[in-house]
Amino acid sequence: MNIKLILKTLGKILLIEAGYMLISLLVSVFYGESVLPFLIAIAGMLLFALPLMLLRPSKTIFSARDGLAGVALIWITMSLFGAIPFYIDGNFGTFIDCFFESASGFTTTGASILTEIESLPRGILFWRSSTHWLGGMGILVLALALFPSIGERAQNLMAAESPGPTSEKLTARISTSSKILYLIYTALTLAEILCLLVAGLPLYDSIVTTFATAGTGGFSVMNASIAGYNNLAAEIVITVFTMLFGINFTVFFMLITGQFVRAFKNSELVFYLSTIATAITLISINIYSMYGSLGQTLRHASFNVVTIVTTTGFSSTDFNQWPQLSRIILVLLMIVGACAGSTGGGLKCSRVMILCKAVVREIRRMITPKRVSIVKMDGKPILETTIANTAVFATLYATISIGAMLIVALDNFDFTTTIVSVLACIGNIGPALGPVAGPTGNYADFSQLSKIVLSLCMLIGRLEIFPMIVLLYPKAWKGTNFKR
Amino acid sequence: MNIKLILKTLGKILLIEAGYMLISLLVSVFYGESVLPFLIAIAGMLLFALPLMLLRPSKTIFSARDGLAGVALIWITMSLFGAIPFYIDGNFGTFIDCFFESASGFTTTGASILTEIESLPRGILFWRSSTHWLGGMGILVLALALFPSIGERAQNLMAAESPGPTSEKLTARISTSSKILYLIYTALTLAEILCLLVAGLPLYDSIVTTFATAGTGGFSVMNASIAGYNNLAAEIVITVFTMLFGINFTVFFMLITGQFVRAFKNSELVFYLSTIATAITLISINIYSMYGSLGQTLRHASFNVVTIVTTTGFSSTDFNQWPQLSRIILVLLMIVGACAGSTGGGLKCSRVMILCKAVVREIRRMITPKRVSIVKMDGKPILETTIANTAVFATLYATISIGAMLIVALDNFDFTTTIVSVLACIGNIGPALGPVAGPTGNYADFSQLSKIVLSLCMLIGRLEIFPMIVLLYPKAWKGTNFKR
Repeated sequence: MNIKLILKTLGKILLIEAGYMLISLLVSVFYGESVLPFLIAIAGMLLFALPLMLLRPSKTIFSARDGLAGVALIWITMSLFGAIPFYIDGNFGTFIDCFFESASGFTTTGASILTEIESLPRGILFWRSSTHWLGGMGILVLALALFPSIGERAQNLMAAESPGPTSEKLTARISTSSKILYLIYTALTLAEILCLLVAGLPLYDSIVTTFATAGTGGFSVMNASIAGYNNLAAEIVITVFTMLFGINFTVFFMLITGQFVRAFKNSELVFYLSTIATAITLISINIYSMYGSLGQTLRHASFNVVTIVTTTGFSSTDFNQWPQLSRIILVLLMIVGACAGSTGGGLKCSRVMILCKAVVREIRRMITPKRVSIVKMDGKPILETTIANTAVFATLYATISIGAMLIVALDNFDFTTTIVSVLACIGNIGPALGPVAGPTGNYADFSQLSKIVLSLCMLIGRLEIFPMIVLLYPKAWKGTNFKR
Repeated sequence: MNIKLILKTLGKILLIEAGYMLISLLVSVFYGESVLPFLIAIAGMLLFALPLMLLRPSKTIFSARDGLAGVALIWITMSLFGAIPFYIDGNFGTFIDCFFESASGFTTTGASILTEIESLPRGILFWRSSTHWLGGMGILVLALALFPSIGERAQNLMAAESPGPTSEKLTARISTSSKILYLIYTALTLAEILCLLVAGLPLYDSIVTTFATAGTGGFSVMNASIAGYNNLAAEIVITVFTMLFGINFTVFFMLITGQFVRAFKNSELVFYLSTIATAITLISINIYSMYGSLGQTLRHASFNVVTIVTTTGFSSTDFNQWPQLSRIILVLLMIVGACAGSTGGGLKCSRVMILCKAVVREIRRMITPKRVSIVKMDGKPILETTIANTAVFATLYATISIGAMLIVALDNFDFTTTIVSVLACIGNIGPALGPVAGPTGNYADFSQLSKIVLSLCMLIGRLEIFPMIVLLYPKAWKGTNFKR
């Protein structure tokens, strides 16, 4: 492990975070609020980062292992420092609560320990929402765009931070790719802010809601989430953009570069859109009697299906009151998640597709053993190692979820709350089912232990398990020499 | 597909079932009850079986596919005819209810639609419990023991009916193996009947309770299940024997043939016993405050852990009232299940072990890519195809469960009931969690549709998925010619 290189990169990342926090400080200045929370946090980051920046690693090559461990370390540290403004502000409870909120922001989970949001300082709420935006596309992707010289084989950093089993290269140069990604991301963000302004939301609300949509996070500045605006036009804008941010950004790149056929034939995109359409149809039939009119039914079904499958977690209605079939469909959508290479969480559509195809292949193989069959996606065969990795990923996802459920169960909430709150955190959704952590509830009543476990679940889910494992696996650190 | 051979085997099996039902008829005679339910069912089976027996298949070789499809067809037909006595008796509701009860018996699930058991005719209850005994070890295994000349490559039948990924051969001759299995099974059954008599249970109760234990079924003739006897000695006997029946019968064969070291080093046995010990310890700590004394705590923790992990499903107390941690541990035990080659259900310990080892291997491979590592069990390397098949099995198990949950959700019971009742049926456990289908409840209130789905889940779970898939997969029937 190249520990010096990892620590130096951590230093650079903290500088970026400090710079990013400056924007929230300016918002505080604009609204005449105390800037102390941000000043202390920024000072802390600078003090911590400067000595790291002075390190001179003898080699500047990131191995795959360095990339994984580095990304895990960076995200934990980033979340810790991101919690400082909340802690100094004083409305967020213990430091663990603040860490929960910060990790929930960066991982774009959107689970909150806040019981009262609207009365909080606007600068603090701005910071809370802006963590979604940075966490959505990834701070290392941003770092690669800003400092192309961060190190050799920096694609190992990017691969460790980007979600999904397939990380197609947009361009040959990794720094160019990250620039393109952030450009698309920024363009979509600006477009949504504009649309929300047109729909009648105030500028501040438009910006913070867009941050939460873009990162598929889900923090809102309203106590009742998006339902608080009671604005149909805004709901439609949010639904459309949420759906867009759940798509693999490679598809947007294809569109920009004129590869329309390739973009629309992208099998993950087809799967993602069909899943959404099927879920909306089934739920609409199931909840129709609750809302009476087709318009209202479709409005709530589509908003909440899209917000859950993209793992955003806004709510336009209390879907916890929906009939059981709809509730279970929502839980399944939480597990499936959005497309790989998007800002969304969950297992990812492409992984679910690979698993399904592999299972069908095995059934075929069992029935007609002599036939050779290759699993394909987008016309290309999928490597056997990719299939194995995907199966392992799904198993680990389930195993970690079960472990977390066992610990969270000590809080002795009902069965639904225990199960679904873990799924909602590891999948980076936010609101769960049940009276406690459902769309009308929050995570305030969980014990400090559960909050730590759930925060770790969010980080494990966002970074897709392996970085955290490498960071915590002693053998991965073998041969690490700080003196080099 | 060799359809004639399959149908002829079905005929033989129905003759065995008819013969087996004669015992229950005699019990009815003994208690002076109506024998009509059994007479009609036996007559029906004979009428159905005789024409099938006249078939003359040109080839008498079972292919793997024939074995799979045949076993599935046989189990469905056997459950249908097994439901007739319940239907004629008239206390069991619709024919779907009766099929549910019959499938629940043969698959050793033990889920019941009965709300009142104690007042039913003793002969009918004897039949209900004796289905557990036959279904536990398997009717095809019995057929192979009785008719060694059933066909060539009859191991394909036995492999399709026996649970677990590894079907080690006891002896070179398949008919000898099945005789040995039934001998061990009968010996253990007689031993338990004797022990229960000593513990003070009446003869009738000792026999039917033993049937339910031996098959890891769980039907009881008491409304309050085993708690109804309030007999500590009987509970201890049942706990010990339940644990024994959850062990791979190969281990007993090793013990009989003097291979003690091999038996006790069997890694699945070690895993099974450690799982039980860990679960008892954790639950004891968790429920201690409910029972006050260490004795009572251990009594209930061990009885219910063993009855759930072996997928028997007796209850000595209402574990639905236990704290959340214990409830989740029980659900996990339901999923893990007993050992392969036992009468128990669930995923099976060996499959869980293979999955865990494969995941650890993949993590190692990721961190040190150059190291070659082979997954081993009991000192022997596991084939890559076995690992792939196990992963596919687990995925299919999850997929089918989810599908069933979506349909059962239409009944709009609570989340817990919907989820756990499906797991309790596909894993062949019986009682679930929640007020409806928990240990104090039953499956009477489910809709007819849900009962069909849950019955199919039981059969799919007992036969381990693949036979049902082959039966229902059109391509598997390609080239089937009835005239041959």
